Amino acid sequence: MGTTSTFQVQGMSCGHCVSSVRSEVSAIDGVTAVEVDLASGQVTVTSDTPIDPDAVTAAVEEAGYEVVP
Amino acid sequence: MGTTSTFQVQGMSCGHCVSSVRSEVSAIDGVTAVEVDLASGQVTVTSDTPIDPDAVTAAVEEAGYEVVP
Repeated sequence: MGTTSTFQVQGMSCGHCVSSVRSEVSAIDGVTAVEVDLASGQVTVTSDTPIDPDAVTAAVEEAGYEVVP
Repeated sequence: MGTTSTFQVQGMSCGHCVSSVRSEVSAIDGVTAVEVDLASGQVTVTSDTPIDPDAVTAAVEEAGYEVVP
């Protein structure tokens, strides 16, 4: 269960990129699952409690990519 | 000094791919330097003695990519 939020990420080009984003976003406190779709750039984050979108944006940037509206 | 050989590698799409190829090819015995150009796919291998092209092909495949003619 928990909360699910979806983010659009730009710049991922291969499985390594997916792994980097998944790894950084998974490290956010309270996150229980992260799904990344390379083709669409969609990142789905499941968390115990509603997640701070800024934390996800920061994690994605840490991985070297960008969240877009 | 040493011998320099150039290979054309297909399928690299980002810096992570470049790192994977560089890492695998660098591990070949006798290799002293590896340069990878992401845009062109060109991999330049410097070695003490002439390198076995099959070893480079195998290393590139180990990284998940392909040497093309």
